[in-house]
Amino acid sequence: MSVFVKLIAATPEADRVVAAAAKICYSPSGAAEIFDGLDTAKTASFLKMLREAGHLSPFEHASFTFAAEGLSRVATHQLVRHRMASYSQQSQRYVGMTGNDCIVPPTVKSDPRALALFREQTESAQRTYDELVALGIPKEDARFILPHGAETRIVLTMNARELHHFFALRLCRRAQWEIRELAREMLRAVRAAAPVLFAAAGPSCVTEGSCHEAHSCGQPYKDIEDMLSQ
Amino acid sequence: MSVFVKLIAATPEADRVVAAAAKICYSPSGAAEIFDGLDTAKTASFLKMLREAGHLSPFEHASFTFAAEGLSRVATHQLVRHRMASYSQQSQRYVGMTGNDCIVPPTVKSDPRALALFREQTESAQRTYDELVALGIPKEDARFILPHGAETRIVLTMNARELHHFFALRLCRRAQWEIRELAREMLRAVRAAAPVLFAAAGPSCVTEGSCHEAHSCGQPYKDIEDMLSQ
Amino acid sequence: MSVFVKLIAATPEADRVVAAAAKICYSPSGAAEIFDGLDTAKTASFLKMLREAGHLSPFEHASFTFAAEGLSRVATHQLVRHRMASYSQQSQRYVGMTGNDCIVPPTVKSDPRALALFREQTESAQRTYDELVALGIPKEDARFILPHGAETRIVLTMNARELHHFFALRLCRRAQWEIRELAREMLRAVRAAAPVLFAAAGPSCVTEGSCHEAHSCGQPYKDIEDMLSQ
Amino acid sequence: MSVFVKLIAATPEADRVVAAAAKICYSPSGAAEIFDGLDTAKTASFLKMLREAGHLSPFEHASFTFAAEGLSRVATHQLVRHRMASYSQQSQRYVGMTGNDCIVPPTVKSDPRALALFREQTESAQRTYDELVALGIPKEDARFILPHGAETRIVLTMNARELHHFFALRLCRRAQWEIRELAREMLRAVRAAAPVLFAAAGPSCVTEGSCHEAHSCGQPYKDIEDMLSQ
Repeated sequence: MSVFVKLIAATPEADRVVAAAAKICYSPSGAAEIFDGLDTAKTASFLKMLREAGHLSPFEHASFTFAAEGLSRVATHQLVRHRMASYSQQSQRYVGMTGNDCIVPPTVKSDPRALALFREQTESAQRTYDELVALGIPKEDARFILPHGAETRIVLTMNARELHHFFALRLCRRAQWEIRELAREMLRAVRAAAPVLFAAAGPSCVTEGSCHEAHSCGQPYKDIEDMLSQ
Repeated sequence: MSVFVKLIAATPEADRVVAAAAKICYSPSGAAEIFDGLDTAKTASFLKMLREAGHLSPFEHASFTFAAEGLSRVATHQLVRHRMASYSQQSQRYVGMTGNDCIVPPTVKSDPRALALFREQTESAQRTYDELVALGIPKEDARFILPHGAETRIVLTMNARELHHFFALRLCRRAQWEIRELAREMLRAVRAAAPVLFAAAGPSCVTEGSCHEAHSCGQPYKDIEDMLSQ
Repeated sequence: MSVFVKLIAATPEADRVVAAAAKICYSPSGAAEIFDGLDTAKTASFLKMLREAGHLSPFEHASFTFAAEGLSRVATHQLVRHRMASYSQQSQRYVGMTGNDCIVPPTVKSDPRALALFREQTESAQRTYDELVALGIPKEDARFILPHGAETRIVLTMNARELHHFFALRLCRRAQWEIRELAREMLRAVRAAAPVLFAAAGPSCVTEGSCHEAHSCGQPYKDIEDMLSQ
Repeated sequence: MSVFVKLIAATPEADRVVAAAAKICYSPSGAAEIFDGLDTAKTASFLKMLREAGHLSPFEHASFTFAAEGLSRVATHQLVRHRMASYSQQSQRYVGMTGNDCIVPPTVKSDPRALALFREQTESAQRTYDELVALGIPKEDARFILPHGAETRIVLTMNARELHHFFALRLCRRAQWEIRELAREMLRAVRAAAPVLFAAAGPSCVTEGSCHEAHSCGQPYKDIEDMLSQ
């Protein structure tokens, strides 16, 4: 695995903030009073009820910021299609790409002939990039020759509601392997920071015990631990 | 003033998180390395440069959650038009409105005849609400008779980019007085938590020294302190 | 029923536009070529497949603009919480409210004592509003005394994906009656303009034959016609 | 120039729809009545006033759908960062890339040595892709070796407000050349369909006669015609 994810910021006491925000909808009390009255057990049972009822809008009040490295521009082009999120990505217009690695898909890695072809091609692309830059071609134009799999870095922020949506889509076995790795590392990181908000997460085989996909993969995960171990 | 705002959650070290996210765009280094290399002075000068250049997308990585009380449904109806934000509001479908106050506009407060009319009317509305509920009318229908100015409570989350946009629009003297009070209290709260991100904020008379409104009020604020003191 | 909805603009040939946009994802051909090759039957079967598989992102390319009248500010305060939409609403800051009606909930209408109390109160609110304006109170402040149920006008635009989400939530029997009326009129209007995109729509009792609500109403609609007739 | 843009759908009578939606905010009349009372001259002067005052929210009611071909994945990765829009893009997971062209930047095209290196490299990338697929590597993994400049197709929908924002950023001389070409073709297309909404558009040198960029290019466009001719 090559994706590396670090949680660089998170809403402090995220579980309690979400529970307090949700409770204000149904209570004559103020938020401060509600917040102080929420112990760990009450927070957990209330959030579980919200999650199971699909009342996820209060989950938006908890925000998580990740730094991700070791992923390809193939993966980030998919990632940034999630519009309910914020992104800052390493620019190929300004940052020279000399020496950058190309992500190698597992199917290529496990086939020696494919791997040799792949390596040869990425090295040749890097040489051509360097030669174009030496000829005076701007970096922003020379990069057209770099492979899609070129490694990039990105900082992204999503709230807990969007994260649940992201995990439901991107942890499914039918998702592309690289964004699935990214999603798995993100879920591991947020579960450490907000265990109650993410007590259950993932595709419906994990959260509901059944598959809603039109073309099911036929291999449901047993549970969240099973999903995270793969 | 009746609006009461409490910052109940904020991205920790918001100034540095935003600076690190922005720097990754222009640097071959990774986010963790960048984050550790950012001292207070470098963070401040870098964020100032971003703000003045209008490159505000990295500001989205800093998130702020407020609990607001003592504001009317007139104000929240305006507030929730800001779509780049998250809201949880006290429900009038489920929470009975007996005894709730009505926000009194300053122009009414300062005119004894207007105030007497206003009070009489809000009391009569409350009595009718109570009578309708006593007749078996559901709370969600009885509330149709409550005044627009009825007090409500709301929890809201905005990121620092949207907050800058919100402050630019809603701290202008031409904005409605109540949402202006709300914006002022919110700015006070975030300046304590993220002084560099919000070193400058507000309408263009404050941030640029000139007015872009088609119909200017003719009374530009001198500076951010002047604006916050009013 | 008091809500009046008029579809004032819609993407022409919306069914075919959505089908062509979706097909481009899976085809080596260009959009123009795909568009010309789509007859009515192909469009219908392809859109049905997308809808049932939950692949609704191409539905975003079809846009619908409605003018709605005869609904209360209670309803529009709920409505504008849908953030994937655009709104232009009659302003109470600038438009005087003299003579405007108040929406009367059906539970009130059907109870003569409740209706008498309600009428008396709305008339008294209107008188107070007029007196406050006569005293020199600005319209934007006098409106604090107007009832929540005061009639308003709004123009709104949603795309077909958001409309499906809106219909799923707001046509459920558990939704508030007024926004349910609005949703029903909107669905009637778009079904005339884009019959294939909206061949099925509404809560899951209609679209999937089963209820996902935590607290089901116990009275599932038989089908879309049954739902639209109520 | 290689980008090819076709406007495949647009809100009918977009100019009048936007003007009617805006007028409802300030008028006691209903939308239908307002719509019928708007002639061409009134529409034009009203929209000009809104545009110059920066009151662009009613512009959201006009929606435009484009099919774009002949652009690279470099450009679409930038494009899809605009989150207030809808996209359907040709998939490299499902559509085989054999025979697809690579976009050649003008700086490369005009330098024979650079062009020879570039061509050699794109041909070698295509050969490797074909060989990997022949070895049984899935298309979604073989594409990691394809150049960033590989041609793609996309259908996108933006409303007139987001389009104005897009044109302001992406028609600036400092924007990347390819997305600038795309923006120019899009502006040409919408000006034919909604001449009043887009009577003025582009960076501030065109719309306001002055530059707000921190690092100005020093070559302001004379006017919109000058900008569109380049």
